[in-house]
Amino acid sequence: MESGATRADIEHVVTRLRDIGAEVHVSEGQSQTVIGAVGDRSTIQQLPWEAFQGVERAVPVLKPYKFVSRDHHATNTIVDVGGVSVGGQAVTVIAGPCAVENRDQLFAAAAAIKDAGATILRGDAFKPRTSPYSFQGLGEKGLELLAEAREEFGLPFVAEVVDPRDMELISSYVDLVRIGTRNMANFPLLAEVGRQPKPVLLKRGFTATIEEWLNAAEYIYKEGNHAIILCERGIRTFETQTRNTLDISAVPVVKGLSHLPVIVDPSHSGGRRRLVIPLSLAGVAAGADGLIIDVHPAPETALVDGAQAILPDQFSLLMQQVGRVAAAVGRTI
Amino acid sequence: MESGATRADIEHVVTRLRDIGAEVHVSEGQSQTVIGAVGDRSTIQQLPWEAFQGVERAVPVLKPYKFVSRDHHATNTIVDVGGVSVGGQAVTVIAGPCAVENRDQLFAAAAAIKDAGATILRGDAFKPRTSPYSFQGLGEKGLELLAEAREEFGLPFVAEVVDPRDMELISSYVDLVRIGTRNMANFPLLAEVGRQPKPVLLKRGFTATIEEWLNAAEYIYKEGNHAIILCERGIRTFETQTRNTLDISAVPVVKGLSHLPVIVDPSHSGGRRRLVIPLSLAGVAAGADGLIIDVHPAPETALVDGAQAILPDQFSLLMQQVGRVAAAVGRTI
Amino acid sequence: MESGATRADIEHVVTRLRDIGAEVHVSEGQSQTVIGAVGDRSTIQQLPWEAFQGVERAVPVLKPYKFVSRDHHATNTIVDVGGVSVGGQAVTVIAGPCAVENRDQLFAAAAAIKDAGATILRGDAFKPRTSPYSFQGLGEKGLELLAEAREEFGLPFVAEVVDPRDMELISSYVDLVRIGTRNMANFPLLAEVGRQPKPVLLKRGFTATIEEWLNAAEYIYKEGNHAIILCERGIRTFETQTRNTLDISAVPVVKGLSHLPVIVDPSHSGGRRRLVIPLSLAGVAAGADGLIIDVHPAPETALVDGAQAILPDQFSLLMQQVGRVAAAVGRTI
Amino acid sequence: MESGATRADIEHVVTRLRDIGAEVHVSEGQSQTVIGAVGDRSTIQQLPWEAFQGVERAVPVLKPYKFVSRDHHATNTIVDVGGVSVGGQAVTVIAGPCAVENRDQLFAAAAAIKDAGATILRGDAFKPRTSPYSFQGLGEKGLELLAEAREEFGLPFVAEVVDPRDMELISSYVDLVRIGTRNMANFPLLAEVGRQPKPVLLKRGFTATIEEWLNAAEYIYKEGNHAIILCERGIRTFETQTRNTLDISAVPVVKGLSHLPVIVDPSHSGGRRRLVIPLSLAGVAAGADGLIIDVHPAPETALVDGAQAILPDQFSLLMQQVGRVAAAVGRTI
Repeated sequence: MESGATRADIEHVVTRLRDIGAEVHVSEGQSQTVIGAVGDRSTIQQLPWEAFQGVERAVPVLKPYKFVSRDHHATNTIVDVGGVSVGGQAVTVIAGPCAVENRDQLFAAAAAIKDAGATILRGDAFKPRTSPYSFQGLGEKGLELLAEAREEFGLPFVAEVVDPRDMELISSYVDLVRIGTRNMANFPLLAEVGRQPKPVLLKRGFTATIEEWLNAAEYIYKEGNHAIILCERGIRTFETQTRNTLDISAVPVVKGLSHLPVIVDPSHSGGRRRLVIPLSLAGVAAGADGLIIDVHPAPETALVDGAQAILPDQFSLLMQQVGRVAAAVGRTI
Repeated sequence: MESGATRADIEHVVTRLRDIGAEVHVSEGQSQTVIGAVGDRSTIQQLPWEAFQGVERAVPVLKPYKFVSRDHHATNTIVDVGGVSVGGQAVTVIAGPCAVENRDQLFAAAAAIKDAGATILRGDAFKPRTSPYSFQGLGEKGLELLAEAREEFGLPFVAEVVDPRDMELISSYVDLVRIGTRNMANFPLLAEVGRQPKPVLLKRGFTATIEEWLNAAEYIYKEGNHAIILCERGIRTFETQTRNTLDISAVPVVKGLSHLPVIVDPSHSGGRRRLVIPLSLAGVAAGADGLIIDVHPAPETALVDGAQAILPDQFSLLMQQVGRVAAAVGRTI
Repeated sequence: MESGATRADIEHVVTRLRDIGAEVHVSEGQSQTVIGAVGDRSTIQQLPWEAFQGVERAVPVLKPYKFVSRDHHATNTIVDVGGVSVGGQAVTVIAGPCAVENRDQLFAAAAAIKDAGATILRGDAFKPRTSPYSFQGLGEKGLELLAEAREEFGLPFVAEVVDPRDMELISSYVDLVRIGTRNMANFPLLAEVGRQPKPVLLKRGFTATIEEWLNAAEYIYKEGNHAIILCERGIRTFETQTRNTLDISAVPVVKGLSHLPVIVDPSHSGGRRRLVIPLSLAGVAAGADGLIIDVHPAPETALVDGAQAILPDQFSLLMQQVGRVAAAVGRTI
Repeated sequence: MESGATRADIEHVVTRLRDIGAEVHVSEGQSQTVIGAVGDRSTIQQLPWEAFQGVERAVPVLKPYKFVSRDHHATNTIVDVGGVSVGGQAVTVIAGPCAVENRDQLFAAAAAIKDAGATILRGDAFKPRTSPYSFQGLGEKGLELLAEAREEFGLPFVAEVVDPRDMELISSYVDLVRIGTRNMANFPLLAEVGRQPKPVLLKRGFTATIEEWLNAAEYIYKEGNHAIILCERGIRTFETQTRNTLDISAVPVVKGLSHLPVIVDPSHSGGRRRLVIPLSLAGVAAGADGLIIDVHPAPETALVDGAQAILPDQFSLLMQQVGRVAAAVGRTI
């Protein structure tokens, strides 16, 4: 309460808290009174406490999410993606081009990543772009090519959905639906992906707190889809040497707060090819359950994000190094 | 180029730039070579320059948007919202509850804001919420109540759209469609709102740069809808005393870069009732074309954002003070 | 406490809290226990609670500063700067060149700002610069010129101190000592400025929270110097169109939390000449007690920060507009 | 140049650029003119280009620092700290209490870290604290205890300097002088540390860009002290689950830009004990040349930063794991 709050102001808050079933404790300090309330967070937060007369600040202490929390489910969740386990003892590497551009590009990338040991293919058919004048993806044609590649190389694949109206279509093709960073707080899209049957790769919003990210996962979980993989991909900060700042601490923090698997995207966070290997190694060393990496057979011709795509040869080197670091922390790839 | 770039690396970049029609100039410094290129930005940016061997950094100099730029259209655009002009000599005040809760609440708010001199009513029927356990809005019932209030008080209204599948419905009711801060980069939604006939209020993403915000406006404009009002509503920073940090500088910056009207939301940026009046006055003093303000007849019972809603009496006081500051900067309300 | 905290963990924390004199209340929720403690914040914070077994998070509720708080001193403090009152009914305008370069430049600026109605002169003799290759100031020669200008124009002046070893020298010349944004958390410098007799202008660190800024003021106050003026000058955010983001909300927030005067620096926050007038008007409209503005007779030749300096003519226009907005909010200049 | 810039504006800028020796190239686009200039960056930046009529923006392309750049010195610098090499093939681990509190605490920590394999001792005698009411360090008594511990355990030590007036004293005791995060832009302190003979550990300002950090190193280097170790310790972002966000990408970025060694502080960045091991492993995997870790024999009694200090047993475990990851990336400890 503010230092100028009256007895009546305090009584009013206490009464309303008790009305909704909270346990209340009032502590009168020298200059200010603090009211502690314990109860169901969602019930307590329905009321706009800072709108009450005399209230200085409402400080939530407990977490706003339930089902995705490790308090709800103590052991690690393992998600099955077309036969590949994510979240278990092995570190899963997802790789491929940022966007599907044509059959040759996709198949060259798929062959290379398969060869180097990756187990899931990435490649988008629908691309949300900052500028309306950029390439927007091949659409369903891209999904067909991805399905062909799955057949050819035995690799399940992940692709992004950006519009709830495309959900059914995309869900019918993919092994793993990706929610991109710009859509982490697109609640209709989250609800929709929570109602379809494929597992979900939920990227962190590049401006979302970890709490907001877990809330987004809760949206999906609550709709019935419990197969969720979280992906840290960098946050927006004042630093300009990198596209975004990979929040490496988010890996152990989220592993502590939630039972869901967490993977790292070293390509989009750094935004530069030469950072992909060191950030991949850092991710695995910090405890990530996997990596998702842009690989392009000819980055100079890439229609999307070529600056960060690595070449097949570099990917092969990366896999060797990741294997050694994984072993050093007691895991396999 | 990197200091270790070879002559072949430089030649390769220059050749590719010339291939796509750019004018190129190479300057060789003591330790590094700089390649300048002038041409159509969207063409030049199709190629991933940082993916080329020997390139250290690609620094875009020109703006990525066209139609919303003041270079394209020198005079101020004036947007008509159900008979009310936004962007002209008068400062427009939009006010009302954050969410429509019921008829009594909406009508009490509408009567009060009309009485105090506001000319457009706000009130949402579809609410995107961070937590899946919060109130999500009344849906179409809310739109019907808003339409009734328009009838009763002669006030056009604005409401938010959060799902492209609701666009037609919402567009059929409202006078002004609002794109909320979390959807500023929801490109399918932007494209959809660009294809419907009502004017658009585009809030800045709370983590978007001004350039990204103008790119979002470009998305809408390019689809054919040119009646766009921009709304600064605070950005995410490290400061925790306010919900977000109102970027007051964005007002004169955007007025310089674009011909579109710019208004300020002092309610959602500050997140605290006591900040609404000073931030409103600051907005008008800085050159904003309007304000959008949360007013609730009983904030303690508000289902959404009560902490920042002001009471009808406070709103009336605000209108008097805003009137004086508007006059001081040569405008009316 | 963590959900896995044992009874012994809880007891241990409670015992230690009671040992140091805190009133303690334990609330056991369904999945987690919350321990509330009320007592002297500085005593409670001596102990590293998050280092105790089973503790998940320690959330401070009360403010860490005392003397600069409005709880300690309810009425506005008015600071006397060489005969000019700051913090009273009048809005004080401080103006002049960023750095003193030579006699002609300083005197031209001083004549112009005096003529337009400013009452305090600014001009630095010691400049901290990001690059070691930039101009570092005239040193004592600069202070002598400022003292001459004070004589000539009857204007008290403010200058920055960057090194505790220069404090005595600078204090002997100036009417107001300025602590720059980069030194807001330079605690030896704060202690030193708190022990000398001249009033202090404490700029907010461009990366400091409001709480840290008030803590810095507390450092000065606690050493015995109570004549402190706070200056908001923009914070570092992800936006790149402006040098920093003026946190206009900080003005009403700080006026609420503290009794000290608050002024605004529209020159260094925006970093662009065309933003100086709108940001000045916004500052006064938001309740600032003053402004500090870079004015240079020939900005193109400025050795420091010329991009944001306005010309004498523009300053004269600014003063007229500031006067009108000040009157609109019930103040004079 | 702005789209409204006149031919005279353009000519004026070009002339001034040529006057100061820059090579100039003018490109006229459809709507805007771009002027490219190549020359000595420090000379070009002396002039405030954005203060010139018609200039829209000045975009620096080359780096502002010279001597600390890898362009200046291609091979890795190895710094000798009392006989321990930093920056070579081995990963150096510095450990010990955040602040020296008393003989027992310091010696218990020193014995433990020596035993586990650390090679440099940390412990501060002068502490800059956010609140004036917190413990400020033991002063010279602390340095004496550190010197005793060096004798006893054969470990060189690092301690912080916060005031230029203490430089001589501190320099006479320590093996490595530390510049803390809050003083990274304290230019008089940087100049002073550049003039004394001991090597320097320069922490990144928690709100500094990588470029500003390298500029700070340049300040020291330019004064004649070339033995500089850089330390990444987390930056301020919007995330609140960690004290700061460890910018892991800074490790490979700085290794690319500069020849100086880079170490990581996982204790102060995360601010939580459970994050120390994963962040240490991530640092080494990303290519850091060392770590600096808070170890305290009894964190619950720590006077400073106990929440992040690990126990001797945990440190021993950390050293084993760090050893395995170092080996995986081809290094030793």
